[in-house]
Amino acid sequence: MQTLVGTQKGSIYHLEINRPKSLNSMSSQLFQDFKAAVDLINKADDVRVVVLTGRGNHFCAGLDLKEAPLMFQFHEDMDQARKSIRIYDLLKDWQLAMTSLSRIKVPVIVGIQGYCLGGGVDLITSADIRYCSEDAKFSIKEIDLAMAPDIGTLQRLGLQNANTSLFRELAYTGRTFSAQEALKLGLVSKIVKNENLNEEIFKLAELIATKSPVGCYTIKSILTREQNLDQHLDVMARTNMAMLFTNDIPIAITSSMTKTKPEYPKL
Amino acid sequence: MQTLVGTQKGSIYHLEINRPKSLNSMSSQLFQDFKAAVDLINKADDVRVVVLTGRGNHFCAGLDLKEAPLMFQFHEDMDQARKSIRIYDLLKDWQLAMTSLSRIKVPVIVGIQGYCLGGGVDLITSADIRYCSEDAKFSIKEIDLAMAPDIGTLQRLGLQNANTSLFRELAYTGRTFSAQEALKLGLVSKIVKNENLNEEIFKLAELIATKSPVGCYTIKSILTREQNLDQHLDVMARTNMAMLFTNDIPIAITSSMTKTKPEYPKL
Amino acid sequence: MQTLVGTQKGSIYHLEINRPKSLNSMSSQLFQDFKAAVDLINKADDVRVVVLTGRGNHFCAGLDLKEAPLMFQFHEDMDQARKSIRIYDLLKDWQLAMTSLSRIKVPVIVGIQGYCLGGGVDLITSADIRYCSEDAKFSIKEIDLAMAPDIGTLQRLGLQNANTSLFRELAYTGRTFSAQEALKLGLVSKIVKNENLNEEIFKLAELIATKSPVGCYTIKSILTREQNLDQHLDVMARTNMAMLFTNDIPIAITSSMTKTKPEYPKL
Amino acid sequence: MQTLVGTQKGSIYHLEINRPKSLNSMSSQLFQDFKAAVDLINKADDVRVVVLTGRGNHFCAGLDLKEAPLMFQFHEDMDQARKSIRIYDLLKDWQLAMTSLSRIKVPVIVGIQGYCLGGGVDLITSADIRYCSEDAKFSIKEIDLAMAPDIGTLQRLGLQNANTSLFRELAYTGRTFSAQEALKLGLVSKIVKNENLNEEIFKLAELIATKSPVGCYTIKSILTREQNLDQHLDVMARTNMAMLFTNDIPIAITSSMTKTKPEYPKL
Amino acid sequence: MQTLVGTQKGSIYHLEINRPKSLNSMSSQLFQDFKAAVDLINKADDVRVVVLTGRGNHFCAGLDLKEAPLMFQFHEDMDQARKSIRIYDLLKDWQLAMTSLSRIKVPVIVGIQGYCLGGGVDLITSADIRYCSEDAKFSIKEIDLAMAPDIGTLQRLGLQNANTSLFRELAYTGRTFSAQEALKLGLVSKIVKNENLNEEIFKLAELIATKSPVGCYTIKSILTREQNLDQHLDVMARTNMAMLFTNDIPIAITSSMTKTKPEYPKL
Amino acid sequence: MQTLVGTQKGSIYHLEINRPKSLNSMSSQLFQDFKAAVDLINKADDVRVVVLTGRGNHFCAGLDLKEAPLMFQFHEDMDQARKSIRIYDLLKDWQLAMTSLSRIKVPVIVGIQGYCLGGGVDLITSADIRYCSEDAKFSIKEIDLAMAPDIGTLQRLGLQNANTSLFRELAYTGRTFSAQEALKLGLVSKIVKNENLNEEIFKLAELIATKSPVGCYTIKSILTREQNLDQHLDVMARTNMAMLFTNDIPIAITSSMTKTKPEYPKL
Repeated sequence: MQTLVGTQKGSIYHLEINRPKSLNSMSSQLFQDFKAAVDLINKADDVRVVVLTGRGNHFCAGLDLKEAPLMFQFHEDMDQARKSIRIYDLLKDWQLAMTSLSRIKVPVIVGIQGYCLGGGVDLITSADIRYCSEDAKFSIKEIDLAMAPDIGTLQRLGLQNANTSLFRELAYTGRTFSAQEALKLGLVSKIVKNENLNEEIFKLAELIATKSPVGCYTIKSILTREQNLDQHLDVMARTNMAMLFTNDIPIAITSSMTKTKPEYPKL
Repeated sequence: MQTLVGTQKGSIYHLEINRPKSLNSMSSQLFQDFKAAVDLINKADDVRVVVLTGRGNHFCAGLDLKEAPLMFQFHEDMDQARKSIRIYDLLKDWQLAMTSLSRIKVPVIVGIQGYCLGGGVDLITSADIRYCSEDAKFSIKEIDLAMAPDIGTLQRLGLQNANTSLFRELAYTGRTFSAQEALKLGLVSKIVKNENLNEEIFKLAELIATKSPVGCYTIKSILTREQNLDQHLDVMARTNMAMLFTNDIPIAITSSMTKTKPEYPKL
Repeated sequence: MQTLVGTQKGSIYHLEINRPKSLNSMSSQLFQDFKAAVDLINKADDVRVVVLTGRGNHFCAGLDLKEAPLMFQFHEDMDQARKSIRIYDLLKDWQLAMTSLSRIKVPVIVGIQGYCLGGGVDLITSADIRYCSEDAKFSIKEIDLAMAPDIGTLQRLGLQNANTSLFRELAYTGRTFSAQEALKLGLVSKIVKNENLNEEIFKLAELIATKSPVGCYTIKSILTREQNLDQHLDVMARTNMAMLFTNDIPIAITSSMTKTKPEYPKL
Repeated sequence: MQTLVGTQKGSIYHLEINRPKSLNSMSSQLFQDFKAAVDLINKADDVRVVVLTGRGNHFCAGLDLKEAPLMFQFHEDMDQARKSIRIYDLLKDWQLAMTSLSRIKVPVIVGIQGYCLGGGVDLITSADIRYCSEDAKFSIKEIDLAMAPDIGTLQRLGLQNANTSLFRELAYTGRTFSAQEALKLGLVSKIVKNENLNEEIFKLAELIATKSPVGCYTIKSILTREQNLDQHLDVMARTNMAMLFTNDIPIAITSSMTKTKPEYPKL
Repeated sequence: MQTLVGTQKGSIYHLEINRPKSLNSMSSQLFQDFKAAVDLINKADDVRVVVLTGRGNHFCAGLDLKEAPLMFQFHEDMDQARKSIRIYDLLKDWQLAMTSLSRIKVPVIVGIQGYCLGGGVDLITSADIRYCSEDAKFSIKEIDLAMAPDIGTLQRLGLQNANTSLFRELAYTGRTFSAQEALKLGLVSKIVKNENLNEEIFKLAELIATKSPVGCYTIKSILTREQNLDQHLDVMARTNMAMLFTNDIPIAITSSMTKTKPEYPKL
Repeated sequence: MQTLVGTQKGSIYHLEINRPKSLNSMSSQLFQDFKAAVDLINKADDVRVVVLTGRGNHFCAGLDLKEAPLMFQFHEDMDQARKSIRIYDLLKDWQLAMTSLSRIKVPVIVGIQGYCLGGGVDLITSADIRYCSEDAKFSIKEIDLAMAPDIGTLQRLGLQNANTSLFRELAYTGRTFSAQEALKLGLVSKIVKNENLNEEIFKLAELIATKSPVGCYTIKSILTREQNLDQHLDVMARTNMAMLFTNDIPIAITSSMTKTKPEYPKL
């Protein structure tokens, strides 16, 4: 992984975007590295929480514009339909990379400082928990490239958002918005002082790491499904046909009764 | 009904959870009583609003842990699949009990004071309107039993919530949250002073009880359906093929023009 | 169009409800005019944004009650089923008129002052962006006519709303609510001073009008679809098979690099 | 149960409609008895297959017309909307009764001789396997009562049928059709000589009764679900998280290797 | 209507494609005429059945190839995305025309003789009942124009077909297939002798015209909906809240008891 | 690829299961090889059709029972929930392998001779076209291992099948069925003499290989989607926004007019 740095501390895996000179913008390499990182993390069965941050002063400035022209290099005698098929394949590949945070089986916490623009917003919508610092600046910037956000923002944030009027204004104008507006939009759930961001998200990660891995797995597995209420309740019951037989439950009950810290085996 | 008390005052039915010594925690008996209460209320055609509260200082402390071990008593030569089928049947039965507030045909208002934990949160998500007092304390506590909330919270609150980041933090950590955070989360819509809670919810109940029963029935019948927008609009039109022929409409129009209080016949 | 006034200023189309003496209430004529206006706007390929307001002091007072009795005039020997089929056809026709703002291919901004009641709320839920003045007063008033809102509010606002408890209270009681509550509900995204409403919405319209028409078209086309996440991402990719080949993109990139204002061709 | 006779022979439960004088037509009592029978069967954990037939010369002649007028007896001052709500409740109750064969957890085989008309067709569409005798005569007869089939036929047979043209002809005309056409339509899967019908369906029931109850339970549980392909595959995997741990599997493998008959424990 | 001829005989409306010199191939005019014809028929409240045939020796030879180049005439400085938007609008318009048979509120019977190719197959898939003569020849011919069938065949016939293997062979090869294969595929439900085709379909039309218009309306209204089983049963019940109150039912019952022909009022 | 042999002849790719000594039964290796083969084929842009057969006398005898015990080897201190998670991951991996034929972008034709049992049936349900020889013998054999078919048969064949009664009999009994019954079931579309099977499927492959690759791609891309009719028609239109701009169309038209064989460029 050339563009990401991964460090495991106990049961917490810290993943950092590592292109600070380019404001952590997204290159083709970054997309490939994200997919590789997720495969790696899902195999490491002693990881209980993932924390994602960006090195340097900014979280992520979106697509690396230097790479955009490469998308449009086709063999010259291709007709439009054949070019379109290649663009489709490329977009599906990027969507897979961008939604890969939702494929990580343990909770993912993102800490955002500085710029979080365009593809950066797409990326964080597939994390579990999002905190940002007071200085964070967001933009659904794709419209300024004459495009619609096509790898997550419209789908995850736009369709479920309670204030669709605010969301659409941001999508149509591409204007920068503050941490406060991101909070109103539901894009982040907490704003912390710049200097405390890392401390806060790691404290949260450590808390979640003490909880039952089976419990966390089940919650995430259910929340990332798409379906109607009846089906949802039924799938929940089917999943718990197995999950309720975990030893984590007696451990949890004993710990709760004896007021001691529970020690759960890894997944 | 051993664990619930029901009292009808005019057209308002007051349902109270009545296990104050156990902090109104949920026993198997309570699940059965809930189903019985709903059947009773749906048959009483002069009830226009239901108010649900808990006796004592707390609304509901969640599953009664003393009963949990009973779930796992199986005949000793059952294999895992057979045990799982029994757990599935049990969960479906509990889901039916917990979602029974949404089966009541008239609006249901819940007033929450003190603790509302675990299964208590599952329960109130299927009510229509939720007020709480300033001292209310909530927790999506299942993770501390190494479980996912499996009878409503993830499905009703988790999938539709605008701030998924906040919701997931609460589900993964099981931490206690205040009335203020419950308001932000959309779990309640109003916080009132402790001493005024009952007064406020009954005032609201009385207001709704003056409205057309056919109108309220139709609104609730539509809002509890699950489907896409086109289908939804079509079902609305199909339902109103009948509903618009109610005499409540001329009564409503006359009352509106003469500024007098309308008197609607029962449903 | 007898009940609407349309004026095009540059690439902004200003549509005004023009029944100030009846508080801009909705007559049968208004429904027909809305459908005609949308067809007109969609054919005018140099329109980039639509702004909708009401003439006089109020945005829209809902259905014109004087017309309601006409709905119920049937040939006397029709049986109930035949009457119901006619009501269904009428409702489908009104739903089509009310949801016509979502059929406009460019972004639609609504500015609301004074009353926005009943059908007025149905109407604005299918706009893209909603601002209101400080004095705006809203009501989901249908219950006071013994009816459920059947042309958009329950479907667009009720099913997706984050605070379902607040929404249901408003639907069951029909009580008036302020600009502040409308903001909390997600019904509007910004409250502005009474005297500044027009200025603010036209400033926003002008900003959006400078953006790529292909980009705006694609965003709106995706956001008005109804489906699950996987399908949604796939449709996005299919749509961009064509959209990414627009010349707006090189124009956007050049403009972004040279810090000049982009000039996009019309759609 | 006044209108049904239930007899258990080994692990096969034989359910017979017992109103031969009325051609086994469906009365209110029959609907109630069906629901009771299903509850009874689902509790009897040693039943592995259910066989349903009609006593006398005919399987079922549909709704008992003598009872139809009772449906339309309302208190005289009820308006149309209130009457409609009662009809809706009644239909939901009948739908529940009619679809109850699909709620039986073990496979259900139906043997049809003589008339199978109207509601009789609705009823058998929710069984698992349908055989008929050569003399069987079918009719989707509701149109001759000026009605649409509203308790299963349109939904189960009409929407999934491969030859929609044939299906619609039968639904619009109500004409009688033969065993051969029923086979083409997919309404039955085998036609047997009149005198062999019982023998054939019991032979089939006995064969299925030798199979693993866990395997049969899982197949039926999956086939009665409604959802898209991706979700379907996922639910299958979730269900088998538990089901593959059954002891029936080693029993099956041993039996298969030693060519002996497997003996499975009850569910 | 230049390309269609409509004649009403009693309560049967006979619609004929009238371009015999072009083998009844589909021109832009034909698409517009189809939409107009459907609007006309839906307004004529005394029509109970529609019969669709083609004048001359062939039913319909598909898209008129002479018109195809017109689709691709664009203003020369349009970029690819803008061209694509126009193609999309054109296709949606054609889909609306082609699916218009399903918008007719009464049953539609199609009689097919000679060629039924490409768009002709798309067209008939949205009819209710399809008969063909022995000499009929079909082809899903779009692949021979390097296209996929995009106005009905893949969607209506391809996704629901029981023998997907046969369907895909026909779609990938574009080969001609006989009346017999069309019957196996479920594309037609009956093959009749060439000289008897008209007689048979009018006999069927006359039979359906004697049935209750409310009953037929309800059947068609339900069968053209798309949704899952639970929702489907519920919509059925909602629709019958109104439909069961028709006078057609007592007329039907009386007629059934007195063995006389029922006379139903028009819709 | 140890268990598969791939040979490209012109634009036809012949894939053969190559474990004849084990009756081409499915090992873990085979699952991995299938995924690899699909990736290989999708990259080879000059392949237009894939033909799948089995070497030796049998197509595929299902899961290799020798490997089954490996599935159930877990670390001894794992609890039930943790074991279940591993089984789930394994099944999802197998489902991915088994459905991989549907991921191949060009049409896939399967030729089946001899046994096609259990997993073999799952496998072929995701192909496009299925022919079998007269001696073919099928079985949905999973029930004889006390299991439900969990990698395709219930989902692809069971839920869409027109004769659900026949399908369920086969699933519950696991009995062997002939080529004739497979034809009725829609599992195959043509039965050919044993000695002609290869000739027939290659003749069909060659015919399809002469068709437009863009046309075939679009047909397959649409037919493998899952959604309702309105959405389906819309996706078709969106896809053709690009596809109709292929040069294959003028090539096709010219060839059609000049009666010459078209030569299409590769995809």
